Amino acid sequence: MSTAASERTRLRRAPARGAYDRDTIDAILDEGLVAHLGFSVDRQPYVIPTLHARVRDTVYIHGSAASRMIRTLTASAPACLTVTLVDAMVLARSAFHHSMNYRSVVVLGQARAVADPAELLVALEAFTEKLVPGRWDEVRPPNAKELKGTRALAMSLDEASAKARSGPPIDDDEDLERDVWAGVIPLGLAAGAPVADPQLAPGITPSEVVTGWKPGASR
Amino acid sequence: MSTAASERTRLRRAPARGAYDRDTIDAILDEGLVAHLGFSVDRQPYVIPTLHARVRDTVYIHGSAASRMIRTLTASAPACLTVTLVDAMVLARSAFHHSMNYRSVVVLGQARAVADPAELLVALEAFTEKLVPGRWDEVRPPNAKELKGTRALAMSLDEASAKARSGPPIDDDEDLERDVWAGVIPLGLAAGAPVADPQLAPGITPSEVVTGWKPGASR
Repeated sequence: MSTAASERTRLRRAPARGAYDRDTIDAILDEGLVAHLGFSVDRQPYVIPTLHARVRDTVYIHGSAASRMIRTLTASAPACLTVTLVDAMVLARSAFHHSMNYRSVVVLGQARAVADPAELLVALEAFTEKLVPGRWDEVRPPNAKELKGTRALAMSLDEASAKARSGPPIDDDEDLERDVWAGVIPLGLAAGAPVADPQLAPGITPSEVVTGWKPGASR
Repeated sequence: MSTAASERTRLRRAPARGAYDRDTIDAILDEGLVAHLGFSVDRQPYVIPTLHARVRDTVYIHGSAASRMIRTLTASAPACLTVTLVDAMVLARSAFHHSMNYRSVVVLGQARAVADPAELLVALEAFTEKLVPGRWDEVRPPNAKELKGTRALAMSLDEASAKARSGPPIDDDEDLERDVWAGVIPLGLAAGAPVADPQLAPGITPSEVVTGWKPGASR
């Protein structure tokens, strides 16, 4: 499956770093825990961190019915959803060539309010399952009141692109013999041991869904 | 030191989660490795991951002189810079109350192109030192050609706000006795062992600046 690069998503700089195939785009969207959603109010751009979840060709964004972000975006404003994963610090022999290894996806388009209750439930299941796969079946599903207070937005992946940097630093040839170490420091999200809610009823232990959770795994 | 909340940065939702004091704002900006910068071109918002560094009351953003982002923003377009740190997954007893613990900062304003060569050098040192404290003195400083090809943008912290969620899940009272584990899974960025550039000259080992580096430490 592939996504056509539009004039707007085609990379202007460093085209070698760009990718438009859906497998690449989906993997980044699915691994990222947080998206940054951009929209404008009175010409002022806002960039807000938000939870997201992909279901096939759609990215869902979660919000309260009362939020400014949701109100703005459901009024057919253009939006941009960006997910970025940080993979390594890149340490070159010159200050100028220091960089980061990363993978990111940019999705452009209109956000659509999810009006169909069945689709809203699909989105809510996707949010929960994206955070912790298997969790949806352990917990109480949303009730009517919760569904009423929740808005989900949907963005199509029609206009999406991925960008990444990987590999060692790229120094100028004349710097290669400098007496300074160069290379990368790998980075990744790590999970600590689960911490029980102080209000947890006695005798309840976390299931394998919780104890087996790892960042980036199976999502 | 404190930053006045403007009408635009004041939180509309969940005001208990908002903070405007500069210590809180600075700590989040300094710990975050990547910022998301929002700007609009022809009414379409774009959100682009970028390196940033704070020097006192200014956040610098790094870019190539040729990039669309830099060209747009130096034409006095309003911008939004957002930095988000992910601290924990919040697992509630109901799907609806699942959440993330996080800290984020939103900076609104005009981006100013850094024209003064001395200020550009300050910004470049800040980018390098933010990635790896102590690194600037180990590596070759920027030369004239590199300075010419680099643009830095500056945003003032006059209009900035922080937002955070921390602590355990908040379930409805009637769910507290449910037979399912609830709590948080702490998350944080972790560094792997440094990986040398394949082109590294023989006999060069990483300094303590490199081997001692930890995410979030001393930045």
